[in-house]
Amino acid sequence: MKLNCAIVGATGAVGQEILHLLEQKDFPLHSLRCFASPASAGKKVVFKSREIPIEQLSEKSFEDIDLAFFAAGKEVSKKYIPLALESGAYVIDSSSAFRKDPSIPLIIPEINPHHIEDARLISSPNCTASIMLMVLAPLHKKYPIKRIIASTYQAFSGAGLKEMEKLKNETLHYLTEQKPSSYAFNLFLHPSQMGADDYVEEEKKMIEETHKILGDPTIAISATCVRVPILRVHALSLNVEFAEKMSKEEALSLLASAPGIEYLENPTPARVAGKENVCYGRIRKDLSHPNTLEFWVLGDQLLKGAALNAVQIGEHLWHSRLRWAQKRPIFH
Amino acid sequence: MKLNCAIVGATGAVGQEILHLLEQKDFPLHSLRCFASPASAGKKVVFKSREIPIEQLSEKSFEDIDLAFFAAGKEVSKKYIPLALESGAYVIDSSSAFRKDPSIPLIIPEINPHHIEDARLISSPNCTASIMLMVLAPLHKKYPIKRIIASTYQAFSGAGLKEMEKLKNETLHYLTEQKPSSYAFNLFLHPSQMGADDYVEEEKKMIEETHKILGDPTIAISATCVRVPILRVHALSLNVEFAEKMSKEEALSLLASAPGIEYLENPTPARVAGKENVCYGRIRKDLSHPNTLEFWVLGDQLLKGAALNAVQIGEHLWHSRLRWAQKRPIFH
Repeated sequence: MKLNCAIVGATGAVGQEILHLLEQKDFPLHSLRCFASPASAGKKVVFKSREIPIEQLSEKSFEDIDLAFFAAGKEVSKKYIPLALESGAYVIDSSSAFRKDPSIPLIIPEINPHHIEDARLISSPNCTASIMLMVLAPLHKKYPIKRIIASTYQAFSGAGLKEMEKLKNETLHYLTEQKPSSYAFNLFLHPSQMGADDYVEEEKKMIEETHKILGDPTIAISATCVRVPILRVHALSLNVEFAEKMSKEEALSLLASAPGIEYLENPTPARVAGKENVCYGRIRKDLSHPNTLEFWVLGDQLLKGAALNAVQIGEHLWHSRLRWAQKRPIFH
Repeated sequence: MKLNCAIVGATGAVGQEILHLLEQKDFPLHSLRCFASPASAGKKVVFKSREIPIEQLSEKSFEDIDLAFFAAGKEVSKKYIPLALESGAYVIDSSSAFRKDPSIPLIIPEINPHHIEDARLISSPNCTASIMLMVLAPLHKKYPIKRIIASTYQAFSGAGLKEMEKLKNETLHYLTEQKPSSYAFNLFLHPSQMGADDYVEEEKKMIEETHKILGDPTIAISATCVRVPILRVHALSLNVEFAEKMSKEEALSLLASAPGIEYLENPTPARVAGKENVCYGRIRKDLSHPNTLEFWVLGDQLLKGAALNAVQIGEHLWHSRLRWAQKRPIFH
């Protein structure tokens, strides 16, 4: 038995990475259909040396689909995921559309796979939250976290392929023609919607998704999210207060045996780009406060921050449920 | 009476800005001599349409100098400032050479001019500390600060003109030839000397210089300093706990009447470059902790972070002391 899969948003930054990962990881595919917006009509994507035509979404798109990866933004997710579920498909959604819904699990497979239970729709978290939690969750298990103060250094991949191209083009024109630019050698607070409490949506996601994934809404969190002229790796400066004292050495030892992360001496976006593991560098005692450690954490936004986590959820479903579900008529 | 001045390090990033500021501000100069390393031998700089030859430093360089600006790094400061003082000159040092010395005042003219007393050698602070304190000092006066957690986004100007050029060149080669680079679209923890406590020198400067300038060593401070691919403006994400509750509105009102700073709606390095004022944008209540506000602060590293502060110290000396010192034989 193998799966009929679909990628919605297959020509976008995250969709492209999902496609590559399904190929690399030899995901148990029976068939693969690729959907994208009308702007991509007539295009094709290459998968294992075969061309797959890009299709437009319709109400009937999911009729024979077992598992659909949604990576086309929250409006598309809101409209088409209910149809996909009705057709009997399992859905893994990389958008924020359903992340806050208490009935929909928000999953990082290394951290809270038990939250999946019997769900058929599973949300994959915000990139910055995922990257942060890969390092903090293994510590929180042993020493509960009291407070997190995060400042982020976020790549343009979070805004999509077009914005990444714009960063490169405007930087080139700035260097060659001194053309003024708001992207070249510039940075800014994350431009998502500002709330009444002066936190932008991206910052609220880090807070709320951390509470949901760790299952602990008492953790005090503040986050300042900043977009910097980097292509695809997010970096985070984290100040974390624990309920009890933990030494830097103990933290390093707990992390050394945690899955999906690795220590690097001086992790930089250039070194971390393309890596599946989230990387951590300097961990130190905050000299200014008891029971507090500081962390420098980097992760590929398109991989563990998005596509890789979605594909890992798919693998988890396959191993825990789908491969044994031969009685379901939708499987082949 | 006007002053015989000298700039040591006149061809560097900070020295060049000091030269421009002395010109723009019509500093009371009788004469100006410019010194730099042997690498600049034979070069000239232009000041008010006149060419000034670059000279090499010697033991006799300061014989007729009233006021010397040092902007050539701490080794040059350590060697030549004692000679300049012996020759009777006043000295303003932009390097870190004497900043920690309790007998040498460390001055931001808007904040602690009273620390100058009768000193003839005055240190100008670290760029990141200066930019941060321009916004925090006016608040600390009314509501003492208990704890600061800072994460910085620091420009390449802090590393000098050559590094700024290297960032531009490597970015161009990355864009045009896909040449791998550790500078292009990359960032890294500040590369200054790492201490046994896991804080680098730049981070210790922020901590120690804040204590000295505010005259309060009890403030708990942690700083994570990061160099980002920006040319000349530092940005800071600040989480600041006060001893008492202060509303965001009260902070904004206190800052509105403070000198040398201004509010900008969305300050970015591109908008702040070349501005003498330090700029602050979003100020908000930290939802995670009582009595805590968060600040987004930007300043031109070469101006208030270095050259402007030095020139302002010179102006302060002129108005408070030098212009009335006609009896000193060294003045003209």
